Amino acid sequence: MAGSWTSIYFDVGETRMQAGRDVVTRDTVSIRKEFSNQPETREQLPFLPTHGGQVKAVMRHFLDAPRPFIDLSTGINPNAYPLTMPSLVSLTRLPEQDEEDDLRVAAAAAYSVSDPALVASGPGSQSLISLLPRILHANRACILGPTYSGHETAWLQAGISVRKFTDFGDLESQASQPGTVCVVCNPNNPDGRSLSAKILAALADRCAASGNYLVVDEAFADFDGESVASALPHPGLIVLRSFGKTYGLPGVRLGFLISAEPIAQRARDLLGSWPVSGLAIAAGRQALRDTAWLECAQLTARRARARLDGMLHNAGFNSKGDSCLFTLVETEHAMKVWLHLCRQGIVTRFFVGRTNFLRVGLPDGEAAWARTECALRLWREQAL
Amino acid sequence: MAGSWTSIYFDVGETRMQAGRDVVTRDTVSIRKEFSNQPETREQLPFLPTHGGQVKAVMRHFLDAPRPFIDLSTGINPNAYPLTMPSLVSLTRLPEQDEEDDLRVAAAAAYSVSDPALVASGPGSQSLISLLPRILHANRACILGPTYSGHETAWLQAGISVRKFTDFGDLESQASQPGTVCVVCNPNNPDGRSLSAKILAALADRCAASGNYLVVDEAFADFDGESVASALPHPGLIVLRSFGKTYGLPGVRLGFLISAEPIAQRARDLLGSWPVSGLAIAAGRQALRDTAWLECAQLTARRARARLDGMLHNAGFNSKGDSCLFTLVETEHAMKVWLHLCRQGIVTRFFVGRTNFLRVGLPDGEAAWARTECALRLWREQAL
Repeated sequence: MAGSWTSIYFDVGETRMQAGRDVVTRDTVSIRKEFSNQPETREQLPFLPTHGGQVKAVMRHFLDAPRPFIDLSTGINPNAYPLTMPSLVSLTRLPEQDEEDDLRVAAAAAYSVSDPALVASGPGSQSLISLLPRILHANRACILGPTYSGHETAWLQAGISVRKFTDFGDLESQASQPGTVCVVCNPNNPDGRSLSAKILAALADRCAASGNYLVVDEAFADFDGESVASALPHPGLIVLRSFGKTYGLPGVRLGFLISAEPIAQRARDLLGSWPVSGLAIAAGRQALRDTAWLECAQLTARRARARLDGMLHNAGFNSKGDSCLFTLVETEHAMKVWLHLCRQGIVTRFFVGRTNFLRVGLPDGEAAWARTECALRLWREQAL
Repeated sequence: MAGSWTSIYFDVGETRMQAGRDVVTRDTVSIRKEFSNQPETREQLPFLPTHGGQVKAVMRHFLDAPRPFIDLSTGINPNAYPLTMPSLVSLTRLPEQDEEDDLRVAAAAAYSVSDPALVASGPGSQSLISLLPRILHANRACILGPTYSGHETAWLQAGISVRKFTDFGDLESQASQPGTVCVVCNPNNPDGRSLSAKILAALADRCAASGNYLVVDEAFADFDGESVASALPHPGLIVLRSFGKTYGLPGVRLGFLISAEPIAQRARDLLGSWPVSGLAIAAGRQALRDTAWLECAQLTARRARARLDGMLHNAGFNSKGDSCLFTLVETEHAMKVWLHLCRQGIVTRFFVGRTNFLRVGLPDGEAAWARTECALRLWREQAL
């Protein structure tokens, strides 16, 4: 698994098995060996969570930090959809089939898919990622990375080997190998790299020609980039969409798998009865149809991203990537910046083994913007 | 799979793959052949749902029925827990680890388990049933039935053969066969049969002695019967618990797997990050700690079950089983009674292929009780 720098870089990135209370890193020895000039971040920061969020857990280690804590560690829209909460009474019965069907109708329309039969709803796109090895029969997964670690974890947990590529051309060359599933996150997390729908559709064609599959995780595609979902139904293409990030309601747990009908049907069969909660159905049916809100939210997020870029620039950092819900900053001082911001009550995303990067999400409200700006200015002043 | 009457009886009971909009019955030919004296229920009632609920879908076929419809087709407590709904703001972030941990602490206490490390939380116990074939390595599942069809479906979907037994002794004799997982629902749905914790613990011992497992689905154990959970941690025992039925909030989607720590850990790994919604966490943390409510709800449900038994008795039916959230009625006129009640706007649970049985849940509120009593009296008058 180890080998080239690139490979190590990616391996240790975010892929850790979630071990409940204790987080276990694979390959710690390799990190130490190959990054002997890097701080041993897992030892120095044993409390770094597997994913973004977990702000309370992180901030337990910064007792003097001002409150309320500001969470910039995720790519979740801080301007949540103004959901009308369903009544308690609506939760006193099992979701009805026509409600689940209507959620899929709303999702098909929102994601420009011709037929709701191509859609399967799940309790968060992470749950659908975990299910992929049971839906798609493959001997190996080829993942374009560095990216969201949930994909690698899912295939490894199913006992299926994973190869990772940083170059799209290298990934393409694997698409015809027997029993391959290719995985691309687009736009990518954490670097915001975007690929065109045309390029991805061509890769899906290539996969399908050999009976293989391409999974495109479009968790951040609502605001940015081009969706390849319009190429569906396609025998080799599976698209994943996330509800919580765009609509700012990740606690609802809702995501979608969109694919040719037999694959979507298999996902529905495996998910079983009542896969999503009454709240998730209500939220999806309301929000996915509110195209005016989405348009406005996109403009708001774009402006916010530009404002964040400006602040980071003033503090001496350059922003990377096309996603407007987060940005990636490259700096050799990433861990120091992360610690500095934590001490100011602001949690960004630092990656074990990718110690030159910080992912920064959008502040929520003017007070949070002001504190973020102050904290960045303070860093700049201390650094000069 | 077919063969004896018992086998067919059970096979065709509730086990149908959920095929989205259309429900497909396996073995229809066998039913017709062997039940030539039975009405061909699937042909006569093509709209019968796979599980209880789906009242709107059923009642589309009874356009003249009075409203509101009364749903007696499930075993869900009609007196829901008076949940304080969490705020929308609480859903705008991912659930934090300490919240998920505290939910498991509350569940461990509620189910009298020594350590929250033995608990895995999932979005409904159905989702945990679907996951069992990936958690437990087995060559075959031996199920005590007739019972909830989700168990058989889960193992068959994983490509694992299923044998079913109506006699507990026959099931016991399988516990030492290599690669076996035994499955018992206790109290059982739909017949309310209860087995003692002692008998089940002995079966778990027998399973464990051969490296096998016993799964006890205690979906209806909060109000009735003895839980075997106190025998945990046990190397061969897995207990499932359901939140929605007892607390009357199935739309929340929350259930638990309780087992020795390595198995619970594997379940948590496979469920991945953020397995349950912010709403489910809030609901579980509130309700599972409210032991006074539970005690009162149990008394209320017992009284309601006795009242229902009385009504059914007056209409010429005998009730079976120990569960106080539903009762099973045996009558050769089951389909006619079901149709009669549907025409009165009251949906009970009729089983394809088990045409001598009706499962009846508890009415919700005095108006529903009165209409149920009237409808039963009308049946009695027409029948005399």
